[in-house]
Amino acid sequence: MTTLDPDIAARLKRTDDGLVAAVVQQHDTGEVLMLGWMDDEALSRTLTTGRATYWSRSRQEYWAKGDTSGHVQWVKEVRLDCDGDTLLVKVDQVGAACHTGDRTCFDADLLTPAPDGQPSDG
Amino acid sequence: MTTLDPDIAARLKRTDDGLVAAVVQQHDTGEVLMLGWMDDEALSRTLTTGRATYWSRSRQEYWAKGDTSGHVQWVKEVRLDCDGDTLLVKVDQVGAACHTGDRTCFDADLLTPAPDGQPSDG
Repeated sequence: MTTLDPDIAARLKRTDDGLVAAVVQQHDTGEVLMLGWMDDEALSRTLTTGRATYWSRSRQEYWAKGDTSGHVQWVKEVRLDCDGDTLLVKVDQVGAACHTGDRTCFDADLLTPAPDGQPSDG
Repeated sequence: MTTLDPDIAARLKRTDDGLVAAVVQQHDTGEVLMLGWMDDEALSRTLTTGRATYWSRSRQEYWAKGDTSGHVQWVKEVRLDCDGDTLLVKVDQVGAACHTGDRTCFDADLLTPAPDGQPSDG
């Protein structure tokens, strides 16, 4: 049983597993920190507790970011996209977002080397 | 047959449908524009043509953003996340990213009204 607002629940377009993608962004710098997944209950907890909470597909359990690491994500704003299958969660990230210790999950693997003499915009 | 660099292909962790998620961000403002999906071929085309190209799950075809709308996404940088299932594609978006005409797919549906007196950080 989820406690998610029925008006919001009606707008979600879920995967076969009942999930929507959640793009997580640092609210002030605009850094994209990670991609997580939420079901209705995780979204409800995110909205009501003010801490970003996900459904872990690998562990099959709810996961309030920072419970073990201390790297809490305080929710500033949540938006739903035009077709209802992706959330944009703007947060204030405490410490590193990535389990590797990197600030974001996208720091380590750049697929596009900048052409010679053209600094990347990253 | 995909032309994707085998070193990159080896690092991808795909869905059962052979896809990875692509978070698309305006390179200079940091706006998150949309979430798309890419298979190996779409990623290869994105990297080699410099135009963001997706696999359309609804139409089951490749889709070079802007082909019909003119709203092209010029690729500035592509990154892969720590577990290989999500790309961050930084682009220069021509016009609107969203098919509704909005600048981003997240403009229209805010789930978190800011508490009284606390302006949102959006």
